[in-house]
Formats: sequence, structure tokens, C-alpha cells
Amino acid sequence: MKLLWGTANLFSNRRYMAGAASNPDPDVFLYAAAQVKNVFDITRDLGGENYVLWGGREGYETLLNTSLKRELDQLGRFLSMVVDYKHKTGFKGAILIEPKPKEPSSHQYDYDVATVYGFLKAYGLEKEVQVNVEQNHAILAGHSFEHELALAAALGIFGSVDLNRGHYQLGWDTDQFGMNVPELTLAMVEIMRAGGFTTGGFNFDAKIRRQSLDAEDLIHGHVGSMDAMAKALLSAAAIIEDGALDGHVEQRYAGWNAELPQAVLKGEKTLEDLAAHVEATRLDPQPVSGRQEYLESLVNRFC
Amino acid sequence: MKLLWGTANLFSNRRYMAGAASNPDPDVFLYAAAQVKNVFDITRDLGGENYVLWGGREGYETLLNTSLKRELDQLGRFLSMVVDYKHKTGFKGAILIEPKPKEPSSHQYDYDVATVYGFLKAYGLEKEVQVNVEQNHAILAGHSFEHELALAAALGIFGSVDLNRGHYQLGWDTDQFGMNVPELTLAMVEIMRAGGFTTGGFNFDAKIRRQSLDAEDLIHGHVGSMDAMAKALLSAAAIIEDGALDGHVEQRYAGWNAELPQAVLKGEKTLEDLAAHVEATRLDPQPVSGRQEYLESLVNRFC
Amino acid sequence: MKLLWGTANLFSNRRYMAGAASNPDPDVFLYAAAQVKNVFDITRDLGGENYVLWGGREGYETLLNTSLKRELDQLGRFLSMVVDYKHKTGFKGAILIEPKPKEPSSHQYDYDVATVYGFLKAYGLEKEVQVNVEQNHAILAGHSFEHELALAAALGIFGSVDLNRGHYQLGWDTDQFGMNVPELTLAMVEIMRAGGFTTGGFNFDAKIRRQSLDAEDLIHGHVGSMDAMAKALLSAAAIIEDGALDGHVEQRYAGWNAELPQAVLKGEKTLEDLAAHVEATRLDPQPVSGRQEYLESLVNRFC
Amino acid sequence: MKLLWGTANLFSNRRYMAGAASNPDPDVFLYAAAQVKNVFDITRDLGGENYVLWGGREGYETLLNTSLKRELDQLGRFLSMVVDYKHKTGFKGAILIEPKPKEPSSHQYDYDVATVYGFLKAYGLEKEVQVNVEQNHAILAGHSFEHELALAAALGIFGSVDLNRGHYQLGWDTDQFGMNVPELTLAMVEIMRAGGFTTGGFNFDAKIRRQSLDAEDLIHGHVGSMDAMAKALLSAAAIIEDGALDGHVEQRYAGWNAELPQAVLKGEKTLEDLAAHVEATRLDPQPVSGRQEYLESLVNRFC
Repeated sequence: MKLLWGTANLFSNRRYMAGAASNPDPDVFLYAAAQVKNVFDITRDLGGENYVLWGGREGYETLLNTSLKRELDQLGRFLSMVVDYKHKTGFKGAILIEPKPKEPSSHQYDYDVATVYGFLKAYGLEKEVQVNVEQNHAILAGHSFEHELALAAALGIFGSVDLNRGHYQLGWDTDQFGMNVPELTLAMVEIMRAGGFTTGGFNFDAKIRRQSLDAEDLIHGHVGSMDAMAKALLSAAAIIEDGALDGHVEQRYAGWNAELPQAVLKGEKTLEDLAAHVEATRLDPQPVSGRQEYLESLVNRFC
Repeated sequence: MKLLWGTANLFSNRRYMAGAASNPDPDVFLYAAAQVKNVFDITRDLGGENYVLWGGREGYETLLNTSLKRELDQLGRFLSMVVDYKHKTGFKGAILIEPKPKEPSSHQYDYDVATVYGFLKAYGLEKEVQVNVEQNHAILAGHSFEHELALAAALGIFGSVDLNRGHYQLGWDTDQFGMNVPELTLAMVEIMRAGGFTTGGFNFDAKIRRQSLDAEDLIHGHVGSMDAMAKALLSAAAIIEDGALDGHVEQRYAGWNAELPQAVLKGEKTLEDLAAHVEATRLDPQPVSGRQEYLESLVNRFC
Repeated sequence: MKLLWGTANLFSNRRYMAGAASNPDPDVFLYAAAQVKNVFDITRDLGGENYVLWGGREGYETLLNTSLKRELDQLGRFLSMVVDYKHKTGFKGAILIEPKPKEPSSHQYDYDVATVYGFLKAYGLEKEVQVNVEQNHAILAGHSFEHELALAAALGIFGSVDLNRGHYQLGWDTDQFGMNVPELTLAMVEIMRAGGFTTGGFNFDAKIRRQSLDAEDLIHGHVGSMDAMAKALLSAAAIIEDGALDGHVEQRYAGWNAELPQAVLKGEKTLEDLAAHVEATRLDPQPVSGRQEYLESLVNRFC
Repeated sequence: MKLLWGTANLFSNRRYMAGAASNPDPDVFLYAAAQVKNVFDITRDLGGENYVLWGGREGYETLLNTSLKRELDQLGRFLSMVVDYKHKTGFKGAILIEPKPKEPSSHQYDYDVATVYGFLKAYGLEKEVQVNVEQNHAILAGHSFEHELALAAALGIFGSVDLNRGHYQLGWDTDQFGMNVPELTLAMVEIMRAGGFTTGGFNFDAKIRRQSLDAEDLIHGHVGSMDAMAKALLSAAAIIEDGALDGHVEQRYAGWNAELPQAVLKGEKTLEDLAAHVEATRLDPQPVSGRQEYLESLVNRFC
């Protein structure tokens, strides 16, 4: 398992906007293409490890003036050209999209991890592009941080992480430093379950609060958040090493390892086969407890 | 253009849960398969026009006890079996999934239209299954009703509509009768832009409020909502026939009809080509107003 | 009934921040006092009709560095001094507070109408200060626009209205021009039920959208919103004149006009009296329908 | 300082609905009065320590059929009768209201702590009735748990606590067992700052999740949450004993202890006095950092 820390981002270029690609004016698309090519070249020359096609602009304000279909096609084409260029120029790093649901636009095309995955699949790019997940964007989209990480891993598009924290009671991007140890622990558990980072790492794309005015606040933000992450990493490692949590999940799905369920998953059974089996065996499945309270307590022992 | 009204649903069976398919216990999956087969048979025999694999249960409460990857694969397999069975038995109707982000679960696998599309693409089912869009579920997922409709159309998976309205200040499914004429008008505009219904129609999956106790409340709910929809349909038809709104959108993207942008969209240009063009022509695109206030006023003239 | 339109605000000074009054540094309080005095003097000399002690800053980011008690007391003292100064200098206009729940702060002391009322009562100012209600702030606080207006009227602190509209899917202040006719109609109904404005009026504290770049967008915003309000005013007037809606409400509470309920409301009955009455009469109240669907349809007939 | 734990509630009667008091039908009010009297008598006879007039019903669905003014007056009268009865019958316990913003109603009259305070002030009951604060209801109202506790203490109406936790991504009452140690720690800090409980205590008004089916889940929920609270109590006690956090807050407002600010707070200065002072001293206050990141890190050291 490989855990690359924030410093990895020193060698990665990020945040170049591709949002312009969804513009109604094709000249904006062309201009954005030229810009991305140039910054991509610099990234490659500097030995960058990944390239984040930062979002935050590829969305719309109102459908009254917007053609979703056209804008999605434009974005798909743009991204395909970037991927082609990557291969042609021998860049080895990852190309990443950062899901974000809104702000400043009312609706963004890369709303969340699931939406980005569907977009990548639609344009045949799901093997070429990964996601850069941010806690703040996760909660704005109605998800937990760990959900977005686990889903990215399940879909095979987990790339990198922006560590800024959103405020749970506010509806915009506060980009606070991550300080919530239990939440970071659950995030670390998902990253470890996914096998750790293969590219990217944790990026402190955070800012100090409006009222934090001194240089030392910047230091406290970084040190405090790094400490919180270290604590979370230790807790997550202990949870994984202990094995009880993963063992519980494994055991919960253990029934699927039997012959019939495996045949079902391999596509060897039809709906009629299963209906016949249910009737023949007078199958009468009983609900089994999900043990949420126990598992929450279990995690608390490690935090 | 074909607009099928709510009565179409008299001949469609709906709401059979496939949610059990994502259960940790394979016996629940088997049992659900048998149930769906049986109800599918009845639907076909009764001449049903579509079959909604109703959601609302295929989600999870906590990742502490959940394997996203396993549950998505199970759901994908289940849905594939249903599609196979449809073809084998000659059912002509549509198979539909109804996106819903949560409730009763904390997170559902069919969160919104974009998420369902990605799921269908992942399992090669995007030509086989469409969505049944509901306003209430749209706003719970952080989208407008018209966004979900427009996106489903853009992605080629628009199927049918549940017309229940959510309360804008509450975070759960209130399933009120649709009464908001301007919102319904925008929905009708998107449905008309998409070419109208080819299957399904509008379904009043609504209930009267907890304090509406009399039989006549049920009548007022249906009549009032039908009136609101009729008003919205007339307004939307007038907007489409007037042509100013669609003309504005068409004109906004008109630049894309030129030779170079068309070549870009056809995949005939590379990032280098575009960068060279930008440099050669010293391209300097200027922002153009999106005219949101004008367009909102324009729509208001028809409502 | 007196309905003053937006032009009334030409003669009212507004938006002077009193937020500084809740600052941990007393010098900021002193400075704010001097500023408010000066701007108050100008307002009076120019014949201003009201004075909005604009909020948006009197809140906190984190309780870790905040004393709620101290800051509330400071704000209460500040407001009392402003009221004293008003009377001393013979200003006849209204002093207004504008409720807003958050942004840029995480939590504001003047969260909503109910919170402002409690604050005014705590410092004995409820007869001296009214509220300036804004739709955008209402929905950010989890309320409907009409709720905030009706509550302000019920509590006797209804002052003036900012007409900017929030986006229902976003969690920050978008300050769009009001275009939603049914929502504006319900707001107008509440203002009319309250007897109309006695001070203030409607203020277009709105801005055009980020993508609306031209001068004419500003005109379309103002004209379109004014048209929407005119339509809403006509609809609301028709609803009030028709009388069916108000009659329904009146009739719903009609039981309270009887002798016993009136004695209860006058404080002439005790809990024991009522318990004895219930027992003696074997009272068995039956639920009565709230008729929400009928009333929503009724309103739709006028919009 | 007195910290009463959950067991205290064995001797307190709670949850008797007063919501009926805001009903349009006065007979419902009368019936509710009889019910509350009877249950109050039982509470007193059993030695109950407090009496929660549980809410959750005193709200409305739509203003179309509702008179806010009438319903607030009815609730005020009802509560006054209960208070009178308490004194007459010599009950020594506290009467508590539990703020909740919504569910099942669209809007409740006891939305949050600030709203309840305003209501109590309006009917002269702020010395007679306190609040029972719940984390789940706090977050549904857009507040943090610690905000509601700190505000209740600042307003002098802090009574008791319901410890159920809400889900941060969902918009309804999930009533989960409290397991979030950092959040509970901040809550404990506010309770300790307020001097601890004088009545009431922590009440586990929680339920296990829908999928937690076994008797042992109930035990895990209670034990796990009690452990989390014990951990939080120890952390909070350490934070208070350490003194750095409280010292920081004290020091932040220290300027207010000077002569002039004290005279301001005592009401001995006018707006003109302060303006003259600012001019005479050419006062030029400078912003001071709020140190949020440092303070968050400081708290993390104790959790």
C-alpha cells in the first residue's frame, strides 16, 4: 500500500480550468484548448505527477439559455483531446476531474463522483481519467466524504484527494482545514480499503477563515490539519489491522460466495431459474441486523 | 409529438421493488428475482405499457457495514436478468428506474438521473432501461425538476414522469399534488423539447396532506393538479410555438455550426491543431451575456 | 390600505452596518457608533423614511472564540442607543433590522424574524424596531417568504421588504430579481392581510446574474420583476376581494368565538376548569380537514 | 457543578403533547388541557423532576389555512395555564419545551431555541419555562448542537438535553444514538460553561436504525453512546481544567472590562458621546485574528 502525502502535489500541476469547454461560444472552447495544451506542456516538463482539469465553471445557471446535450458533447470532446495529447506526448501522470455540484454555477456537469463516472463512460474515458475527491464538495452534493471515496474506488476511478473541509451547516464552499478526526478516519479507512493512492495524494486546498488574519494562523491551519490527518491515519491503520470491521463486512456478504449466487453473478442464471429455485426450496429469507450501532462503537474505540 | 397523460398508467404495472437485489443476503436477491418475474408476467398479461423497478430501497445506511462494489454488481446483474426476461417473453413496454437520493435509506444507488445513467452504462443497459423522473426526488437530490428531465432527454434515457411535488423547505418526500404552474411549465417545455413521451406519461403518485381528511380532498388534489398541468401544458405549447425561447438557445450556440467547431466535434482536430489556430488568429473571445433576466421575463409572459 | 412601492426607498437610507457592535474589540463598537450616528444624521437631513441597520455581519464563525451572551448584550445596547438618538433628534422614520441566517458568517444573531423578535423583546425594543424581510434570507433560514411576512405581522414588527429572490437549490444569497409570480402572490396576500405597508415598501436589492453582462440585462431585471410584482399584486387583490380564502380561514377558527374559548383566551379559566368541562361534557373532538389541496387550487385560479 | 445523567429521566415525565393547543378547533384545545392536567398530576405524584411539553405537533402545513397570530396566542395561553397549575399544585420540577423546526409539520412554532425564547418573552413566561435541546433538531434548524446549548444558556432558559443524533446528510429526524465524540465534547464544554445542569440531564431519546433488528443492537446503542458521552465528558473536563480555551475567549473580550466600554454597557453613554470620543481620540481600531484554526487544533488535543 502506498500513501502519498500532500507534498506529492508539489510535483503535480493542477487546477487548470476546462470549464470553458462547455461554453456556448466555440471560440472560448478553442482558447481553453490552447491554454490547457500550454499548461500541460509545462506540467510534463516540470515532472508533474497528475493534472487536475479543475471544474468549478463547467455548469449552467438556467436551462432557459442552455443546451445540456451540446455542452456535454463539447466537454466530452475536449477531454478526449486532452487524453489523446497526454498519450502522444508521453505524459505518465494521471488526468483528474474534481467533482463539485455547484458554486459559482447553479448546476455543474461534474456534480459528484457518480455523475463524473457516467460522463466518462458516455465518452469512453473511464479508463483514462480519475477523480480528485474533496470533502467540501461531497457534502454540498448531499454525500459523506467516505461515500465519494468508496464509490470512486468501487468504480475504478479513485485518483487524488483535496482535503478541505466544508461547514456542515452552510451551503457553500468554506474550504476549511480538515480537523474532524473521526470523519478523516473513515476517509482513511476507505482509501486503505481501496489499496491506497497510486497517484496523487492529499492536497491542502484549504484557506484560513476570513477572521484568521495573521501569518501564524496559516501555520496553525496546516499543522493542526496535518496532526488531525496523522491521528486519523493511525486510527484507520489500527482499524484495518484489527480486522474486526472488515471481517464483519466480509462475513455479512459471505452468502454470496456459495455456488448458486456465484453462478448468478457470472450471468449463468436467468430470472426463471431463480424463480424456479425459490419455489422448489420454498425459500423464506429472514432479515439480519445491520449492526450499525455496534460498528459505530467499534470505530470509536480506535479514534 | 405524443403526450400521454396519467391514464396511460392504468395499463402499466409499476412500483415493484428491485431494491432487495442489493441485499447482503443472496437469498433476498433470489426471492426478489422470483417476485419480479411473477409480477412481470402479470404486467405483460394485462397489457402493461411499462414496468417501473421502483427504488426507494436499494441503498445503504452506513459504509461501516456495506460493500458498494458488491451491491452495485448485484443490482447490475439483477437488472440485466430482468431485461433478458423482457426480450425473451416479448414484452414491448419500457423498463424504468426511478431516481431517488435517499429515504428511507441514507444513500441510494439510484441517486439522480446522472447516477442512474452511469450505472446503466457500467452494466451495458443504457439502451434497455429508462428513467421515471419525479419532481420530489429531483429537489431532494439538489436539482430542479426541469434539470432532471432535460438531462434524461440529453442522455437518451427519458421514460416517464411521477408528478408528485416536494416541499421546498423540507428534506423528505412529501409527495404533494403538483400545483406550481411555472415549475410545471418549465417541465413541460423540456418534455416537448425532448419530443414528448414515447412511453409512460404523467403519474399522480401523490397523496393528500396528513390534515386533508375527507374524500373530497382527494378529488380536489387530482382536479387541482390536473388543472395546473393543463395550464402548464398550454403555456409550454405557447412558448414552443412562439419560438423566441428556443430561437434564443439556438442562436446562442450558433457559432458551433461553423466549419472548425464542427470538425472539432467530429474528432477531426487535436489539441495542437486548436492551439495553433488560436495563436495564428490571435483569438481573443469576448464574453456574451446569458440574458437570464430577459428569458425569465419572457417565460412569465406565457404563464 | 397603503402600498408603497420600491421608489419609497429613494428616500430611505439603508444598509448601514451595525454588525460591528458585536465585535470582541470595544473600539470597533465605538467606531461603529460614530459611523451610525453620522449616517443617521444624513438620513434625517435628506428626509429618509426608514433606516435599515443592515446585518450580514453581526454573527460568529465558531463558538470556540465567541461569547454569545456578551455579543448579544453589546448588540442590545447598541440598538438602544440608536433608538434613543432617533427620538432625541426627532427622526420620524422606522428603524429596521434585516434578518439573515448566515453568510458571510456561519451564524448570525438576527437569523430570522422570530429570532429578531426575541432579541428585541429581551432588550425592550419590540415597539421601536421592525424588520426588513427578504425572500432570499427567508429560504436560507428554512422558511417560506410568506411565513416570514406573516410572522412579522403577527408579532407586530412588520416593516419593509427586500424583494430579491434566492435560488431554491443553492445555499447562499443569489439575490436574483423576483420573478416567481405565485410566490410573490402569496407574499402580497400576507402583506395585504397585515394591512399593507405603513413604512418602507419593496426594495429591489437584487443584482443580475454573473453571466448577465449587458446594460440591458439590468433593465430586463427591473422591468421583468416589476411586471411580476404587478401581476402578483393584481392576483393578490383579486384573492382578497373574492374573500373565499380569508373566509375559509375565518370559518376554520370560528369555534374560538364562542363564550368558553373566549374566556380561556382572556385568562379567565384554569387548567382545572377545562379538565372539569371536558369530563362533564364527555368532550370528544373530531379532526376536521385542513383542505390544503382545495386552497392551493383556489389560489391557482387567481394566478 | 451538577451533571445529571440519563437516569434522571426515570423520574421525569415527558413528551406530553401541547401541540393540540394551536388547533383551529377549540375543543381540541380543551381536550389537550384536560390531558395535560391529568398527566401533570401523575408526574407530580410520581416525583417527576421535569415536565416536557413535547412539541412536534404545534405547527402548520400551509398559511393558506392558518392564522399564525391566533395559534401563537392559543399556545401562549395554554402554557400560562400549565405554569399557573404548576405553582398552585406545588410541583417543583421544570417545565420544558423542546425546540424542533419541522416534521411532521412543515413549520413549527418552537422552531429553535431563539424562537422559543421570543415566544416565552411574548407571553411573559421566560422565567417559568426552559428548553430541552436535541442535537437532531438543532441541525434540522440549521444550527450546531453547541450553538443551541450556548444560546439557551445565554438566554437563561437552558433546561435539559435529548441526546439523539441526526444524520448530517438527511433532512429528517433520524434519532440515532450519539456517537460523535468531538461534537459531544463541544456540547459538554458549553454545558459546563453554563454551570452544568440544574434540572434534567441527558435523555437517550434515540432509536436503533431500521436495519438494527436484534435486542443486542439496543444494548450496543446505549452502551456505545454512553461510552461516547463519557469520553466527551472527560475531554470537556480536561479542556475546562486546562483553561487555555476559556482563557482565550476571556482575553478576546478583555477590552470590554475598561471604564468606557463598561459605562456603555451600563447605559450611561449615548451615541453622541461615543461619536465625540471617536473623533477626539481619532480612534482607528485594527482587526484582530479570531484564531479559529489554532482553537480547533487545541480542542483536538483533548479529544
